Amino acid sequence: MDTAIKTVILSTLIGRPIYFVMKKNNKTAKKIFSSLIFIGLSALISASGQHPNLLLTKQGVKEIQASLGKYANFDKSVNELKAIADKALNSEIIVPLPLNEGGGYTHEKHKNNYYEMNAAGTMYQISGKSEYAEFVRKMLMKYAELYPTLGLHPSKRSETPGKIFWQLLNDCVWLFHTALAYDCIYDYLNSSQKTNLEKNLFRPMAEFISNGSPANNEVFNKMHNHGTWATASVGMIGYVMGDKNLVEKALYGSNKDNKSGFIRQLDVLFSPDGYYTEGPYYQRYAIWPFMVFAQVIENNQPELKIFSYRDSVLLKATNTLIQCAYNGNIFYLNDALKKNYKTQEIVYAVDIAYKNNPKNTFLLDIAQQQKSFIVSDAGIATAKSLNIVKYEPLQFHSVLLRDGANGDEGALGIIRAGKKDKTQMCLTFKATSHGLSHGHYDKLSISMYDGGNFVLTDYGAVRFLNIEPKSGGNYAKENHSWAAQTIAHNTVTVDETSNFNGNIKVSSLHHSDIQYYDFSSNQIQIISGCENNAYKNVKMQRTVAVIENKTFSYPIVIDIFRIISDSTHTLDFPFYYRGQMISTNIQYQKFTAQLNPLGTKNGYQHLWVEAIGKNEKPVTQFTWVEGNRFYTITTLGNSNTKYLMTRTGAGDPNFNIRNETAFMMRQPMVKKHTFVSVVEPHGFYDENKEITENFLTSIRKIELLADNEEYSAVKISTVDNNTFLLIALNKDFDKDREHSIKIDNQTVQFKGNYYFNELTK
Amino acid sequence: MDTAIKTVILSTLIGRPIYFVMKKNNKTAKKIFSSLIFIGLSALISASGQHPNLLLTKQGVKEIQASLGKYANFDKSVNELKAIADKALNSEIIVPLPLNEGGGYTHEKHKNNYYEMNAAGTMYQISGKSEYAEFVRKMLMKYAELYPTLGLHPSKRSETPGKIFWQLLNDCVWLFHTALAYDCIYDYLNSSQKTNLEKNLFRPMAEFISNGSPANNEVFNKMHNHGTWATASVGMIGYVMGDKNLVEKALYGSNKDNKSGFIRQLDVLFSPDGYYTEGPYYQRYAIWPFMVFAQVIENNQPELKIFSYRDSVLLKATNTLIQCAYNGNIFYLNDALKKNYKTQEIVYAVDIAYKNNPKNTFLLDIAQQQKSFIVSDAGIATAKSLNIVKYEPLQFHSVLLRDGANGDEGALGIIRAGKKDKTQMCLTFKATSHGLSHGHYDKLSISMYDGGNFVLTDYGAVRFLNIEPKSGGNYAKENHSWAAQTIAHNTVTVDETSNFNGNIKVSSLHHSDIQYYDFSSNQIQIISGCENNAYKNVKMQRTVAVIENKTFSYPIVIDIFRIISDSTHTLDFPFYYRGQMISTNIQYQKFTAQLNPLGTKNGYQHLWVEAIGKNEKPVTQFTWVEGNRFYTITTLGNSNTKYLMTRTGAGDPNFNIRNETAFMMRQPMVKKHTFVSVVEPHGFYDENKEITENFLTSIRKIELLADNEEYSAVKISTVDNNTFLLIALNKDFDKDREHSIKIDNQTVQFKGNYYFNELTK
Repeated sequence: MDTAIKTVILSTLIGRPIYFVMKKNNKTAKKIFSSLIFIGLSALISASGQHPNLLLTKQGVKEIQASLGKYANFDKSVNELKAIADKALNSEIIVPLPLNEGGGYTHEKHKNNYYEMNAAGTMYQISGKSEYAEFVRKMLMKYAELYPTLGLHPSKRSETPGKIFWQLLNDCVWLFHTALAYDCIYDYLNSSQKTNLEKNLFRPMAEFISNGSPANNEVFNKMHNHGTWATASVGMIGYVMGDKNLVEKALYGSNKDNKSGFIRQLDVLFSPDGYYTEGPYYQRYAIWPFMVFAQVIENNQPELKIFSYRDSVLLKATNTLIQCAYNGNIFYLNDALKKNYKTQEIVYAVDIAYKNNPKNTFLLDIAQQQKSFIVSDAGIATAKSLNIVKYEPLQFHSVLLRDGANGDEGALGIIRAGKKDKTQMCLTFKATSHGLSHGHYDKLSISMYDGGNFVLTDYGAVRFLNIEPKSGGNYAKENHSWAAQTIAHNTVTVDETSNFNGNIKVSSLHHSDIQYYDFSSNQIQIISGCENNAYKNVKMQRTVAVIENKTFSYPIVIDIFRIISDSTHTLDFPFYYRGQMISTNIQYQKFTAQLNPLGTKNGYQHLWVEAIGKNEKPVTQFTWVEGNRFYTITTLGNSNTKYLMTRTGAGDPNFNIRNETAFMMRQPMVKKHTFVSVVEPHGFYDENKEITENFLTSIRKIELLADNEEYSAVKISTVDNNTFLLIALNKDFDKDREHSIKIDNQTVQFKGNYYFNELTK
Repeated sequence: MDTAIKTVILSTLIGRPIYFVMKKNNKTAKKIFSSLIFIGLSALISASGQHPNLLLTKQGVKEIQASLGKYANFDKSVNELKAIADKALNSEIIVPLPLNEGGGYTHEKHKNNYYEMNAAGTMYQISGKSEYAEFVRKMLMKYAELYPTLGLHPSKRSETPGKIFWQLLNDCVWLFHTALAYDCIYDYLNSSQKTNLEKNLFRPMAEFISNGSPANNEVFNKMHNHGTWATASVGMIGYVMGDKNLVEKALYGSNKDNKSGFIRQLDVLFSPDGYYTEGPYYQRYAIWPFMVFAQVIENNQPELKIFSYRDSVLLKATNTLIQCAYNGNIFYLNDALKKNYKTQEIVYAVDIAYKNNPKNTFLLDIAQQQKSFIVSDAGIATAKSLNIVKYEPLQFHSVLLRDGANGDEGALGIIRAGKKDKTQMCLTFKATSHGLSHGHYDKLSISMYDGGNFVLTDYGAVRFLNIEPKSGGNYAKENHSWAAQTIAHNTVTVDETSNFNGNIKVSSLHHSDIQYYDFSSNQIQIISGCENNAYKNVKMQRTVAVIENKTFSYPIVIDIFRIISDSTHTLDFPFYYRGQMISTNIQYQKFTAQLNPLGTKNGYQHLWVEAIGKNEKPVTQFTWVEGNRFYTITTLGNSNTKYLMTRTGAGDPNFNIRNETAFMMRQPMVKKHTFVSVVEPHGFYDENKEITENFLTSIRKIELLADNEEYSAVKISTVDNNTFLLIALNKDFDKDREHSIKIDNQTVQFKGNYYFNELTK
């Protein structure tokens, strides 16, 4: 069956038969399901022909009008939109010649313009007041005058510049919002006005976005969030204009063959678990055009059942995005900046997801946290329900989010443990595919949130979003030279070289794998992954367990990281921690009169070495305080292990890098090495109240009792002489297999991939 | 009259006549008023002889009992106390042999013990349940057993070690709390139990504190917060035991001559404006024993009218403390850590201040922010009033807080400007006396809070309070080598040497002076100070004006700093800023492959030089972002000016110093130099919402039109060609004097010490 090939001939309105060649278990699988939606295009575009009919419908307008004054937070959202629109009405309309980059004057002006048009268009529908429509008309006319005169944006920063903005992406976002505004005032305009706008502005812009250059065409057809913005914006203006051709291109790609386009993106960019391959930060950004365009499709071509498509992948993706957060803050993974549930894109996603599946009542819990709604059918539906539906509070749970269109390209593991409140521990384990252009070389990296804080950190991105003096508001060059490199992550770097030698093309061919995971126990949650391609002839296995036991005040992390090679390598293994260093048992020298970088390339040039140490004892401990808790890493070293304390900021001529600290283990020239570490949150600290409790870790000793091809066995001893044994299998994973292992003078019998227990005293 | 000497003979119960030698206008002035209270001691100690009668009285107990269930936050405070007491009742009583330093086991244990005794004692009174009293009794008996066996605490860190704690201070705090507990269970004990406790514990401890060694005696009689804790604790146990002798020593010093003791502290440690000479952080700490002991005195010797003493200096001091904060966080000045209104000491102060002057209804506003009360007469009075009294919200206002017992030793200026909310600007200007052992060499330094954040910072203290591995929880040695030094502050350092060569004895002989100030205008608030002793043959004048004008989105700061000498000096003038550097117009080189310290001593050894720059243009600008706002320093330099970007953390072998950034002007080898700078908050930044507004300063140019002995004239021009003229007088200050100055081809006429106006275009 693996090689079975099926050919399906589809007859469509596009006018020619499409041949689908499908291989089972590869990326084009499940095309049969996909084809159903493809056939669905036979329906009329915008069957009703009425306006508005993108996000807001005539029915939605009535409901909003009838609801005003009833739902305080929805009213607030309407009033915020009204305030934007009213301020716009009282200001001069300025449509400047494009000049600046992100955050610069013309950039922000054009951005405000589309927000203003969107706000005024919506307010026109809600209030019926023609001055709002007139404002949108006037501004659109100015754009219709300007647009035909524009060449490419003068900035040379992007490989695909827009005309209004420095990058094409932002032109798409402009069209996305403006399509919504145009839809709202469509019936207000006479036909010559519409003809003018469509001829001079919308059609040329749609053409520019989808086919303005080979590079633009490539973006339009690309499996990437830029492709989503491009297809969504072109599709949306297509629906408003009743332009079937544009809609088909948006849905099925330039060639309308479904090898690209929005539908294909749904197949490829999300895993079966609704994980978006670029990672949570871009999942948040992409969910915006995905959900909005899907709602537009639903309103105009309900027969496509877009929200049911691929086992409701979009609804699943919204839920997955919600899970990829700690206290409402989206995880830092790959390129990422600070974003939380209150961003408008997540407001859009939550409202639209709820409207299209009101069974997910936990979305109402997010909505009440957001205290904000889209002024649309979805927004009013959500706001209403919030007042009448009894909803479940959002529950975070440990989850494995498979990556890859077929879910077979590794996964992101998320373990939650401890008290179910804002201080709960959350550990992420990244064993995914590369994640396209925003991916980092961070195979088997972990991050840890605890006590309400980001404790073991991922740098995220080097970018000052929309601050023009900082690299035009775009990614700084240090994003590549630092943030993306392996050494910037809580994982092992081999021979001072990043995974796949930092080559995205090679990295994109591979992915890490999950060996096993089990989140079913109250005592231990465990995940194990491997990476065998990132370094030539080096195999890496990492098994991370989160333990909850009365011996410890909070959950602790046991981390076994095995490196096996047939040649010798130097291994660097940092833990980037946030907080203030308190104590360590190593003998270290802190450099007081001179700092130098750790290396010259692959991210090493950005690390100041603050201190270097050795430890005569095998068990090394390093303690810091962050927020109200102390944290100790206890790790097993030997006489060759070097310990480094580093701080980012070297090799940074333009002050782009934040200063962050790491405690790093360096194991020089080994063929095999297994790092065993325990991270324990402990005690309590309150500077304001002057309370200090348990600033010492309860971990006394780590022993690696066995470490071979079959399994690794780790014994942890506490200061109170409690001992715990963790045995983690290293191969032949099978959750049902029985094992009997003799270790430490006793025979341990267990079923499955691991064993964990407290040893009797 | 200046040399007039009066001798007053006072007859007191102490049994011998006291001779008061008073010089007018020196530190012993106003002793006539003081003597009134001195005479008052003739009243009986604890007239009623009833218990409890320190903080809690029989009447207070009744009121609390009658109020339970009525005031949610007061109930919460009772329940918190009850939880501490109940937990204590169910735990083993452990009174360990003293061993550890701050934050260590025995330190925290003894601290918890006194909190537990205080809680249980209070709960005994409220509930009448004898198990609470029994718990206190048992624990006290254990202390009575242990105490006679104790020598000095084994830690060698303090010059005045305690017996229970590493420093005597903490023994005083122990006695302070335990006296309250003892008072609560006094009537529960039989006389032999009391005799045992007093003989073996309380009297020896009071003796040890007041006279255990020459050093202890010195502390007891010292004008310092340690002296306050010592006298308050001894006085309080004296009142409980009805020991007049101890009370008299506490009130009037070891020799009962009122040359020292609590009353004398009220004369000396506070200025007439209620400013405490060690600064706001220690004002917060000292206010605790001051207010509590004052309430105890009031309850036992109401005829002393302690709260009216010295124009109600204690009530004034509470109000002053409240004003020394930004968004509830106490200012960082001198040695200081993070403390806010919610600390228990400020809860004590607010409740007691309100109880003793219910007219200050704004204290209720603080109380509702604290959501916490002392379980005492004062606490219930405040909690009740909060529910029935219409209170004014706390208003912050610009204020000059004079330093020195007579208010003639300089002052701390506080300017508030802009929108009256959490984003309001607050600028502090420090021209005070040294501030005893916790003072810094920071003459004429400023700090700025804005937009809800600490923007131009003062480092505060290098201390990890109660974290034993960090210098025993006490001040680290870098507190002196870094935090106290002049270069650590936003002021001018001359020749890389701190004020007064870092000699506290010399520094304590002098103080800065305020030349003039005016906070009366909506347009400009101005303060001008001078310091003529910090450096030999160097005169320093600094004039800082906060301008509010429609040209600027937020208030801006104009800063004129004049240095005059007859010999050449190198001047370093840093602005410590919090946030991320965005842009500058200087040509700078950032060191990417090696960092070195700026110097080798006087704090310079702790500064890594990250970048060095020059500017061919006279107007230098440096922009950063913090929170939601951008900030630009615009400063006037010349071709000799060097610009340094520094980061703290060099010369710090034990990771004690936080990494903080400065933009520094260095003016080499000048006899005279005037720094003119403008600090402008501008624009808006929201990474989450991706909004950027006005990341460029509106300041285009600064010109120093004139700068001479008489006055300095500064012209500020904006990018929109608005111009402003500030003329600041440099001598002969007189708010009523008329001036006519020809400047920039026009004659400016004004009355007073300064002129400010927008120039017509």
